[in-house]
Amino acid sequence: MRQAGRTLPEYMALREQHSFLELMGTPELAAEVTLQPLRRFPLDAAVIFSDILVIPAALGQAVGFEGGLSLSPAISGPADFASLSGSPVAEKLAHVLAALKLVRAELGSEKALLGFAGAPFTVASYMVEGGSSKSYARLKSLMYREPEFFRELLFAVADATVEYLKLQFDAGADAVQLFDSWAGELSPEDYREFALPAARRVAEGIRGSGVPLIYFINGIGNVLESASEIGADIIGVDWRISLPEVRRRLGADTVVQGNLDPGVLFAPPEEITRRTHAMLDSTGGRGHIANLGHGLMPGIPLTGIGAFIDAVISWRREDA
Amino acid sequence: MRQAGRTLPEYMALREQHSFLELMGTPELAAEVTLQPLRRFPLDAAVIFSDILVIPAALGQAVGFEGGLSLSPAISGPADFASLSGSPVAEKLAHVLAALKLVRAELGSEKALLGFAGAPFTVASYMVEGGSSKSYARLKSLMYREPEFFRELLFAVADATVEYLKLQFDAGADAVQLFDSWAGELSPEDYREFALPAARRVAEGIRGSGVPLIYFINGIGNVLESASEIGADIIGVDWRISLPEVRRRLGADTVVQGNLDPGVLFAPPEEITRRTHAMLDSTGGRGHIANLGHGLMPGIPLTGIGAFIDAVISWRREDA
Repeated sequence: MRQAGRTLPEYMALREQHSFLELMGTPELAAEVTLQPLRRFPLDAAVIFSDILVIPAALGQAVGFEGGLSLSPAISGPADFASLSGSPVAEKLAHVLAALKLVRAELGSEKALLGFAGAPFTVASYMVEGGSSKSYARLKSLMYREPEFFRELLFAVADATVEYLKLQFDAGADAVQLFDSWAGELSPEDYREFALPAARRVAEGIRGSGVPLIYFINGIGNVLESASEIGADIIGVDWRISLPEVRRRLGADTVVQGNLDPGVLFAPPEEITRRTHAMLDSTGGRGHIANLGHGLMPGIPLTGIGAFIDAVISWRREDA
Repeated sequence: MRQAGRTLPEYMALREQHSFLELMGTPELAAEVTLQPLRRFPLDAAVIFSDILVIPAALGQAVGFEGGLSLSPAISGPADFASLSGSPVAEKLAHVLAALKLVRAELGSEKALLGFAGAPFTVASYMVEGGSSKSYARLKSLMYREPEFFRELLFAVADATVEYLKLQFDAGADAVQLFDSWAGELSPEDYREFALPAARRVAEGIRGSGVPLIYFINGIGNVLESASEIGADIIGVDWRISLPEVRRRLGADTVVQGNLDPGVLFAPPEEITRRTHAMLDSTGGRGHIANLGHGLMPGIPLTGIGAFIDAVISWRREDA
């Protein structure tokens, strides 16, 4: 997660010349940013450089990243949503698909390419809040006052997301991740009522495509059993729950991705190695995509990232 | 939680005349703010108006609330901590104790008075970050690079907290809450390694006082069994886990406080009533202190707060 952004100096250098929207919106630049981490580190896969808020843009909201995130108009009810002029996903998001094709051509057959989208609850939450939020006041007002409309909004996002993910498969994505970053803020009851059915609609919409789906919630521990019901192939796990505990609760064959605390990358290399090996020991490396439990944070040293990747590789060698 | 702050107009009016530090630092004003919610709502208990960061102040950090929270010097290692000139808790925090006495005298025997403190991990985290944080970069750097010193810091905070809580009992607190607001950000392993032993040191330090201890973690679900080991009398629960699930995991006799999502107070009154009654039905109201699952947020309407309190009372009547 967040392979490129926030940490690599070569990314920072590009950001000095281009806005975030320019980087994302220009296929050659987005492909370049996607490939940067693979030139520096021996990674197994590239994650396309994009953002989950491309779907609100396709649905007709103006999405701005400079000077604080903004989505306008914020959706406070059916009238706001009806006022949007959406565009066909294939047209509006052609730049992401073009970037995927460029990266796929560069990667060769040895490396995987991961696409992604936001899960409907998380995307709709941004659409309602009109940006980031600490209190989710607008979201929870709408969710509890107009649950029927909120469900319609979730399903509209879900349908656009299905279309978008299928286009990503066609453009060469080998697997896709669905990020439900905000769903961990919900009570178990509200998760089942709102986030789960919408995420399941996405999973069902792409079923049969043959492309594996990874479903990630930041704070999945409290809704683990419910989250498993969407029918994803792989469960992305944050660091607040151990991987053996996930398998104890979901079954020994559950395929997991994660879950080292990204904060551990601030530790000395030997401590990073110790903890990464302990994580891999805990699953035996079987049915387990080694990863962090959330995105990289600003200030994480490159040596920490390198130590983590080296530790994954050295464990593999020791194991072999 | 946060009975007074952020929402009541009579509190806002006082804040226009006085800074947060003035309100907290002047016993008559702090007592007034503590009593404001009880004049407006039929509450069973008052929560003393104070802040968990009085302990860093007693330990010698300069704590500022205006223009963003700041604690200085931020503790980046043993030298910073050694450089602090701490004061005796009874002296430095005499204003809180005086406010407790004033409120206790006003309340009469029908209403309870709750004191509180931050749990050592959460308080030490603020001391290390020097303020609020989104990434906990300084905290995690220190925790993983100098675990021995970080443990010393945690225990120093724990010892000052024990002293402070005992003084709160003497000043009339009927129960005390220990807030481990940040501990939910830790992996289960790190929770056991750092936060748990320090919180247990506080619980053991006040054992035998006869004053019940409520232990709250925001995001307790992932570390519930570990958290129960500190030996608190009551477990404060956020809304991300259901109360029956807490009792299923900790035992049917576990006394709980919580746990309605404060965001529900944005809902229409009938929905607030429905969810509050469902929460009380789920425990049968036995061994359960009805409360929110976290603090009030700015923008929550007074009618929502009133509807929640009315729903607790009406459930009681229906039950009787």
